[in-house]
Amino acid sequence: MKQFTGINDVSDVTGLLQSAFVYKNEPLKSRDLGNGKTIGLIFLNPSLRTRMSTQKAAQNLGLNVIVLNISGEGWKLEFTDGTIMNGPEAEHVREAAAVIGEYCDIIGLRAFAELKDPERDYAEHWLRAFIEYGGRPVISLESATRHPLQSFADLMTIVELTNKPRPKVVLTWAPHPNPLPQAVANSFCEWMLMSEVDLVVTHPEGYELAKSFTGDAKVEYDQKRAFAGADFIYAKNWSSYRDYGRVLNTDKSWMITEQKMALTDNARFMHCLPVRRNVVVADTVLDSPASVVVRQAGNRVWSAQAVIARILEANG
Amino acid sequence: MKQFTGINDVSDVTGLLQSAFVYKNEPLKSRDLGNGKTIGLIFLNPSLRTRMSTQKAAQNLGLNVIVLNISGEGWKLEFTDGTIMNGPEAEHVREAAAVIGEYCDIIGLRAFAELKDPERDYAEHWLRAFIEYGGRPVISLESATRHPLQSFADLMTIVELTNKPRPKVVLTWAPHPNPLPQAVANSFCEWMLMSEVDLVVTHPEGYELAKSFTGDAKVEYDQKRAFAGADFIYAKNWSSYRDYGRVLNTDKSWMITEQKMALTDNARFMHCLPVRRNVVVADTVLDSPASVVVRQAGNRVWSAQAVIARILEANG
Amino acid sequence: MKQFTGINDVSDVTGLLQSAFVYKNEPLKSRDLGNGKTIGLIFLNPSLRTRMSTQKAAQNLGLNVIVLNISGEGWKLEFTDGTIMNGPEAEHVREAAAVIGEYCDIIGLRAFAELKDPERDYAEHWLRAFIEYGGRPVISLESATRHPLQSFADLMTIVELTNKPRPKVVLTWAPHPNPLPQAVANSFCEWMLMSEVDLVVTHPEGYELAKSFTGDAKVEYDQKRAFAGADFIYAKNWSSYRDYGRVLNTDKSWMITEQKMALTDNARFMHCLPVRRNVVVADTVLDSPASVVVRQAGNRVWSAQAVIARILEANG
Repeated sequence: MKQFTGINDVSDVTGLLQSAFVYKNEPLKSRDLGNGKTIGLIFLNPSLRTRMSTQKAAQNLGLNVIVLNISGEGWKLEFTDGTIMNGPEAEHVREAAAVIGEYCDIIGLRAFAELKDPERDYAEHWLRAFIEYGGRPVISLESATRHPLQSFADLMTIVELTNKPRPKVVLTWAPHPNPLPQAVANSFCEWMLMSEVDLVVTHPEGYELAKSFTGDAKVEYDQKRAFAGADFIYAKNWSSYRDYGRVLNTDKSWMITEQKMALTDNARFMHCLPVRRNVVVADTVLDSPASVVVRQAGNRVWSAQAVIARILEANG
Repeated sequence: MKQFTGINDVSDVTGLLQSAFVYKNEPLKSRDLGNGKTIGLIFLNPSLRTRMSTQKAAQNLGLNVIVLNISGEGWKLEFTDGTIMNGPEAEHVREAAAVIGEYCDIIGLRAFAELKDPERDYAEHWLRAFIEYGGRPVISLESATRHPLQSFADLMTIVELTNKPRPKVVLTWAPHPNPLPQAVANSFCEWMLMSEVDLVVTHPEGYELAKSFTGDAKVEYDQKRAFAGADFIYAKNWSSYRDYGRVLNTDKSWMITEQKMALTDNARFMHCLPVRRNVVVADTVLDSPASVVVRQAGNRVWSAQAVIARILEANG
Repeated sequence: MKQFTGINDVSDVTGLLQSAFVYKNEPLKSRDLGNGKTIGLIFLNPSLRTRMSTQKAAQNLGLNVIVLNISGEGWKLEFTDGTIMNGPEAEHVREAAAVIGEYCDIIGLRAFAELKDPERDYAEHWLRAFIEYGGRPVISLESATRHPLQSFADLMTIVELTNKPRPKVVLTWAPHPNPLPQAVANSFCEWMLMSEVDLVVTHPEGYELAKSFTGDAKVEYDQKRAFAGADFIYAKNWSSYRDYGRVLNTDKSWMITEQKMALTDNARFMHCLPVRRNVVVADTVLDSPASVVVRQAGNRVWSAQAVIARILEANG
């Protein structure tokens, strides 16, 4: 694997999944694989789960880890070519990425959507610049349009907890006071569409995701109908893609409740966290045995470890 | 030892003390004890001594260390159950602690008193929530009401420097421009009352500490009388507990001076640092051979190392 | 080597240079040299290159690394003796440095010039205080007046890329919107004057560096004349030393362009980064094969590694 920015970078999802389960059973199996090598984890945005799980995964593989919270500690970067740089940006991404590439064998990068200009966000300028100028394998720690380490951990969780050949998985929009990126939802669709599940996406009208991510997934505007017979309910808020970055609706009726869970086939409740209680989901659901959100978060270690190991193996 | 939040978590103070002295002589004695395990150090408040000494102690034991400055880097956490979380708090401590527990074998937590509501502070809601929801041994890196790693290092320092069977130890209030928590003073009392010392606490009226911490310790409102014949002077400011969190008095006459030290039996001067010179203590005392403040800070490594080792041993 | 704050701390530049090239070829050659020891990297100012390269260098030598961004995470320090500390400074450097010395075998320190008072800056009060009170070998990660790890990496780069016995090296001032310290330029002069190169310094009038740094270097106010026949062009902005800390000139005519590079003997273009494109240097120069700025940044690892190794060896 030469990079990990989305499922398209994975030639063999089943093999990668198997590797993640092996690490879950035996975390220190490849404890010397990364010896003497360094992974740089660059965060343009805050992180709890991604930072801790990726750092732990890297340490399990014997890698040195350098964490850089560039928003607070570093410089504002310029991306446009040909600019006269006499504004606040003190460095161009061409130099910044190339230099980080001198110090790291693998570059992990988190850069959220700005939610102002869909073309700019969906062009993934941060990720693309680091791939182009960094000269090292890049792992997305959540980019403007995807969160593949999360989606891979989500897939692990579903595979662990189902014994149906083709479980019904429902991605449901849920309310939130703030405008959030579409990255988790986009990415979840991509991974589910490549897996042995039946995916249904449900949300209020106006919250349609980009067609390039939902593809042939069934879209159902009636949340209750969508929940019928479901095996997994994956809740997530996202802001509008069409009316880009806007909160169109804070309708509480979309919150996940016990009543709605009762419509499912004893579905598990999933969320990538952090989650706002009694806004996105009722306490009674989140505190029930059906909730597997902490397991999902735990699986972030093993999915990251499988990805990093694959990249180390491919890059000698 | 299943956790370390105060002296009550230690079944065998003498044994733990002995272990700390062993590590002081041979820092790398148990260099593989923590191999493949991770300690997370979560700071809600700034830290120099605690962060560096605990990180070094953990590294001496072969642990991986993940430092999280949650105030700057992370999320505001909700603690109340049943809340509709549509305010600034993006995550409930139930999920945050549980997730951190997924990534760490031991959780170190620093969360100062807010000094607004004594019941809230003295209920130790941060510490209790992480113990309840984290599912891992918790080490206090200073909580609202106690700083046990500091007190343990203080005890080490006293034991190292006395040859009396029962030295006289004076905890004295000292002036400070800002309102400070009672944690260091509370904790120091607890540890001294369990040790072979005669503890006297001296402070202006109105600065009485919570009775649950001072217990049977002698309280003396006349600082000079308290100093008479003392072997150790431990200076520390704290804000009022009765008139909670208020600075009642900035009377410079309580500063520790050479004249006052002359009343003692060649006492050593102790302070947990950081210390404001010529406010809490005169330069002539702090720069004299009687001052052992740097030794105290140095002992923070070995006390932390003994505690972490004990927890690792108890948790296989 | 008992410390590394400037070239005067290096008894044998040629030997140190040789050691850096050895590490460049074999990064893990001395991977156990620092085992069980700790380097503390204290940053009063932001850092990308210095932090990452020094952290990597230390890890290559088996050291534990503790990074402390003291501006954001720590305390304001007092430097003046005898002060009554009732202002914002919560700790005196005497205690802060001594305590850090208890936790670290080597102290790395970054503290930029404040550009207000030349005497204060050129007295290097941060560096001197940490040397005096820290009790450990100190490595400058850029001080008020010098950036020796940068200059050493610059020397490596020049040695690697020349086969002339005495190449012509030109340090040229370049425009910048903000007032910058003289540290990189000062330090570069010091290192070049001790090496087998012909150094020419060129800048507008008013930008003369301190004579204690430029020594006998040739100063040429005509940039084009300075460039004639040069083998290396080292561009850097600095604020005025005479009219201390002021930007006297933002004359774009001092920017490094293709036309000017054409006057040289196929010179390499050097800069310590971060660099403002089309202000300090034109894209056409920075993106040409003549530019070796990323190589310079890469050499920061090996120069730091040679310095740290030398200090570890000297301190048993």
